[in-house]
Amino acid sequence: MSIFTRIINGEISCHRLLENDLVIAFLDIHPLAFGHALVVPKEAKVHLHELSPQSAAAVGAALVRVAAAIVAETGATAYNILQNNGARAHQEVMHVHFHVIPKYEDGLGLEIEWRAGSIDHAAAAALATKISARV
Amino acid sequence: MSIFTRIINGEISCHRLLENDLVIAFLDIHPLAFGHALVVPKEAKVHLHELSPQSAAAVGAALVRVAAAIVAETGATAYNILQNNGARAHQEVMHVHFHVIPKYEDGLGLEIEWRAGSIDHAAAAALATKISARV
Repeated sequence: MSIFTRIINGEISCHRLLENDLVIAFLDIHPLAFGHALVVPKEAKVHLHELSPQSAAAVGAALVRVAAAIVAETGATAYNILQNNGARAHQEVMHVHFHVIPKYEDGLGLEIEWRAGSIDHAAAAALATKISARV
Repeated sequence: MSIFTRIINGEISCHRLLENDLVIAFLDIHPLAFGHALVVPKEAKVHLHELSPQSAAAVGAALVRVAAAIVAETGATAYNILQNNGARAHQEVMHVHFHVIPKYEDGLGLEIEWRAGSIDHAAAAALATKISARV
């Protein structure tokens, strides 16, 4: 059982921002910046791609509401949403969670390295055909 | 009008993965890794917190479906979801979009710097009270 399930079950307290049948949101206790929040589906899945359609839609709706309230209350004009799947991709708690991370003028917030390549259009077309047949 | 609106309108082609009334998904032409995709609400808003509840829910549902198909077709076992709001937070196209970025054993994918601090519980409790009253 992850620490998030224990928070959902009320065994561990949190600075709660939103809660409904499918989602809970609270402040991260190891924040990258003031107002850093987590939006967590109550469904206990490790990876995003394992969520039910109901949880997926509820998390999307909650993200928007939480982000709007964080912007209004912190005054942050920029922020990042980050959701990590798998240890290699920096996932630490093995229960799906979205970070909402304000980015301030002083630089506090998420730092990203962006090393984009060029697309191979033939390989991309082949992959898109396969993916679009699955979704 | 952003380049994504032009893609939605069919003026610019893309490697399409999914499309419905509210969302389109396609491969990023400047990928960080093979299978790097974008999930885009058709609603032309700059920031996540401006989306309608309908778009928000539809984007959440589409993210899960696209991520599942990318995992199945690329074999990636790790991936990141990233959504940037504001130039300071690395937003380049001013139309809401979520990146789905596979992370491979060779290291290709998103690179993150994570410099977490400690929470100020008194300030956090005050902020949570204000945010929870808004959402």
